[in-house]
Amino acid sequence: MNAHAWTRTLQVSEGFRLADVDPESKPGYHGHKADGARDLAAGLDELNLLQERLFAESRVGKAQDSVLLVLQAMDSAGKGGIVRHVVGGVDPQGVALAAFKAPTAEERSHDFLWRIAKRLPEPGFIGVFDRSHYEDVLIGRVRSLAPAEEIERRYDAINAFEADAAAAGTRIVKVMLHISRDEQKARLMERLERPDKHWKYNPGDVDERMLWDQYMAAYQTVFERTSTEIAPWHVVPANAKWYARLAVQELLLAALEDIDPQWPAADYDVEAEKKRLAAS
Amino acid sequence: MNAHAWTRTLQVSEGFRLADVDPESKPGYHGHKADGARDLAAGLDELNLLQERLFAESRVGKAQDSVLLVLQAMDSAGKGGIVRHVVGGVDPQGVALAAFKAPTAEERSHDFLWRIAKRLPEPGFIGVFDRSHYEDVLIGRVRSLAPAEEIERRYDAINAFEADAAAAGTRIVKVMLHISRDEQKARLMERLERPDKHWKYNPGDVDERMLWDQYMAAYQTVFERTSTEIAPWHVVPANAKWYARLAVQELLLAALEDIDPQWPAADYDVEAEKKRLAAS
Repeated sequence: MNAHAWTRTLQVSEGFRLADVDPESKPGYHGHKADGARDLAAGLDELNLLQERLFAESRVGKAQDSVLLVLQAMDSAGKGGIVRHVVGGVDPQGVALAAFKAPTAEERSHDFLWRIAKRLPEPGFIGVFDRSHYEDVLIGRVRSLAPAEEIERRYDAINAFEADAAAAGTRIVKVMLHISRDEQKARLMERLERPDKHWKYNPGDVDERMLWDQYMAAYQTVFERTSTEIAPWHVVPANAKWYARLAVQELLLAALEDIDPQWPAADYDVEAEKKRLAAS
Repeated sequence: MNAHAWTRTLQVSEGFRLADVDPESKPGYHGHKADGARDLAAGLDELNLLQERLFAESRVGKAQDSVLLVLQAMDSAGKGGIVRHVVGGVDPQGVALAAFKAPTAEERSHDFLWRIAKRLPEPGFIGVFDRSHYEDVLIGRVRSLAPAEEIERRYDAINAFEADAAAAGTRIVKVMLHISRDEQKARLMERLERPDKHWKYNPGDVDERMLWDQYMAAYQTVFERTSTEIAPWHVVPANAKWYARLAVQELLLAALEDIDPQWPAADYDVEAEKKRLAAS
């Protein structure tokens, strides 16, 4: 029985409708903000222990598994905060972070998964995708950056790609941070009001915001087409940052507990090495 | 006047002799362990502010500068602890960590700096090299992995390479963590005594340890040949982990203060954007 089973309530399943999810809600969690902060700190210790064991396995060549956290969201929904406050608590030696921007000319000359495949985490690592291949069926669809039939092809290509990665040992944790349109407005306005936040604002953010409904429809299609048994989507209500961080931490913990990494046994003679070391 | 000037005492200069450095000492710092922990926490806030500003400049295409921390040391001297407890406090989005192992066949088919150049930090980032091109004149020299004349050539090649990187805006902070031979024995013994640390031990560690004096001589040569004005070496006594972490944090702070990153001004019309956003 998994201690982090409450995160199951975030999982996208048959009949899921994004429009039914209240971004203010905190499904599965009954505590308040102060409880959330306490549970996040406690979870970090657990996360670090599991991560160190996973990393240890890789250092002695015994790791087969890895975790991949895929983060998708509208602007200002809190991806950066997840990276900072959830992933940031983990030893950087065991984390591989990839932030995907608009593809370069070289990247565009390849299949859309080419740049993604190169950044899949090695065994023993926790990989984090800040945006991902899903941009190619989100902004790609909303902005018609590729022909409709190519967009259609990509959903199946993504499923096949993720199935391969999962078969190779990667636990794929897909998260959409879901904020409301009003919450986004407030957050973007704060960026405009504070000179130390001006760099986080881009006029293009409002252009994308104008297409909110189209983006929500594109996300709905993503969930319908790519929430698979091996790599389900999770929609995390994110108007409350503390809740979203806690939920993502729980999802990572559940993935690591599923791997259940163990301290690797020594592949050398411990007593003999003690004698060699003592004599050195 | 730089607030972190005490770290100047760690800098290698004319006439420096590694043999004169006491690994137990805490040069330039007058506090004790508890003060060190307090100062490390306070320094982290400062480090985060400077790092965020540097990163902000990069996000709006205005950053030219970066920081590169080069960590070298004998086994168990605490590189991992620096990464975990000093670098680990910084937003992972702005950190680029590269751990250099023994070169692969492909890497060996290129010049020794080929794989290094690819991992230099982008503007706006703090890069960290866990081991580096200096391995090629340390284990490379001690183990005669390359002909003597090639090793000789490398010192000048390194200086030229680092001068180029510095001219392009990278502040290079070179650190050797210096532990005593006895301290290493105690730390390796602990790894043998604790099953959860067995993975950190490798019989090869004792083989390298047997060559301690040769390694110290190779480091001495490194300091004489590659401690340049633009990229000086710092020898950080590291028997006391808390001191070493504080010292490296101070060196990073000094580098960032030298860059003196500022919040970038908006390159859009803030008031006009407020109106657009309000109407959206």
